[in-house]
Amino acid sequence: MINARVIVTLKNGVLDPQGKAIEGALAGLGFDGISGARQGKVFDLKLDTDDHEKARADAAAMCEKLLANMVIEDYTVELS
Amino acid sequence: MINARVIVTLKNGVLDPQGKAIEGALAGLGFDGISGARQGKVFDLKLDTDDHEKARADAAAMCEKLLANMVIEDYTVELS
Repeated sequence: MINARVIVTLKNGVLDPQGKAIEGALAGLGFDGISGARQGKVFDLKLDTDDHEKARADAAAMCEKLLANMVIEDYTVELS
Repeated sequence: MINARVIVTLKNGVLDPQGKAIEGALAGLGFDGISGARQGKVFDLKLDTDDHEKARADAAAMCEKLLANMVIEDYTVELS
């Protein structure tokens, strides 16, 4: 069993209105000194394998087919 | 300038229908051997400070006030 954490974030330069809203909301709550906020997604997957190479390749394939929109998003995979 | 990455995940035991849907969709795409999928959120914040202690405390306060629902979610803060 391998736990894979996949983090999907918007590519640099892609407009992130949700992040902007969060930045504004944090400023409204009194948190000043925030010069940027971007929101992304995290997926925690339990993979029934003990082969790290296979787990990494599978997670990358899952990102490219379903979890990430490769036009506007990047992903990283961490195994543990 | 400190970059803070905040990861917000559902607490163990909290039902995650979105994660279940992802697990089903991945199985439908032919990825077998997935025994669990949970979805969470990631926030990348740029903080205008060089004080790591302050940055960590600020990020934790942001989570407790806005970014996470402490009843059902946990958060972790990574600084870089």
